Amino acid sequence: MNKVYVVGLGPGGSEFMTAAAQAALERSDVLCGYTVYVDLVAPLYPEKERYTTPMTKETDRCRWALETARKGRTVAMVCSGDAGVYGMAGLILQLAADFPEVEVEVICGVTAALSGGAVLGAPLGHDFCVISLSDLLTPWEQIEKRLECAAEGDFAVCLYNPASRKRKDYLQKACDILLRRKSPETVCGWVRNIGREGQTSRVLTLQALRDEELDMFSTVFVGSSATQNIAGWMVTPRGYEKK
Amino acid sequence: MNKVYVVGLGPGGSEFMTAAAQAALERSDVLCGYTVYVDLVAPLYPEKERYTTPMTKETDRCRWALETARKGRTVAMVCSGDAGVYGMAGLILQLAADFPEVEVEVICGVTAALSGGAVLGAPLGHDFCVISLSDLLTPWEQIEKRLECAAEGDFAVCLYNPASRKRKDYLQKACDILLRRKSPETVCGWVRNIGREGQTSRVLTLQALRDEELDMFSTVFVGSSATQNIAGWMVTPRGYEKK
Repeated sequence: MNKVYVVGLGPGGSEFMTAAAQAALERSDVLCGYTVYVDLVAPLYPEKERYTTPMTKETDRCRWALETARKGRTVAMVCSGDAGVYGMAGLILQLAADFPEVEVEVICGVTAALSGGAVLGAPLGHDFCVISLSDLLTPWEQIEKRLECAAEGDFAVCLYNPASRKRKDYLQKACDILLRRKSPETVCGWVRNIGREGQTSRVLTLQALRDEELDMFSTVFVGSSATQNIAGWMVTPRGYEKK
Repeated sequence: MNKVYVVGLGPGGSEFMTAAAQAALERSDVLCGYTVYVDLVAPLYPEKERYTTPMTKETDRCRWALETARKGRTVAMVCSGDAGVYGMAGLILQLAADFPEVEVEVICGVTAALSGGAVLGAPLGHDFCVISLSDLLTPWEQIEKRLECAAEGDFAVCLYNPASRKRKDYLQKACDILLRRKSPETVCGWVRNIGREGQTSRVLTLQALRDEELDMFSTVFVGSSATQNIAGWMVTPRGYEKK
């Protein structure tokens, strides 16, 4: 069959994978993706062929998957979290226009906003934004503008890619933008290594978040003005209690 | 054990449930929740007790779950989609302050933004907002303000609860607000009955979306200025193709 599944694995091993994701991996001949993510699931399917590329080779990887499917094999392009949210589904569908004989199916998964949210409590219990702080593919001015609008709209905010070795001060810059409109006492939280060994998390104020040293394995949550710290849980109420 | 699991079921039956969600249901003595959601999973666990309440009885339902756990039983409070995103996790944690002997664990699930997104392609492939159009618990002015900020920040937007019998024209009102700042040609989409029998979807322009008649079983996606209609898929590129 000429098919590419783009599969969201969820945060870690198989515990947070959906049954549909597992079925897609089982039906595939080849597991393809960023090395770290393929290594997460390859032990479950030792007999399957693997094709991995490093972090910056996304276009090569997706083109390889489509070319391999054109040759009659079924390929699973695996993504951490969801297949669509900062995942490979978009790029595969963009390139798939050149491969009309290949069928593409996107299999959703639990993105870090949800898996990290569950660790902290319910930080995204009302309207929220998801913003990546990585400026590898996005101009910093656009990220800044979105942070300003998220604060202006009093959304709860989930920040992906809050820092990396090359972007040590990005979280601090983002917090400074949010602090122009939000209280320094705003309830915030972060989770590191969600659903994996060594998972850690913390609930803290926006002022304290500004000075945290996080890395690319961390997901950050900034509350709305309604968000509360309830016995160490980060909770953005929907408003049921007001009825 | 004095425990309440707040469990996100994903969009429909068991196909999009995670292994962790299934394990939590298996460990529970009682399945508790909104009637429609309990009915989705009860057939998988015919031996388990059920406690269901209608849509507006959320506080009663959560208090019952905590009281039942205090008596020594393990309760699964089931939620459609994710446990936190417009789910019961927040309310349970708010009320749990009165039940210090009860342990609460939140189990994430695939929310409609992700499951509906996979049906359409990759509408949320870059930064996005999730906004509920229901004003049962949120003043309409706040919803309007958030729509304005989402448009101003050029986010992709996912709209929950776009309409109901009592709120027939809310999607139209929301589109009119977005149209003040966004092109009428903005690529949009909707999915109805995600992951259930009778699933339908459509990709269309913002101008056309304004006049769609949808219902409470629909999830709506409004693109950013970068979102494209690629062979009928709704795709918001991350920007890999520019490298």
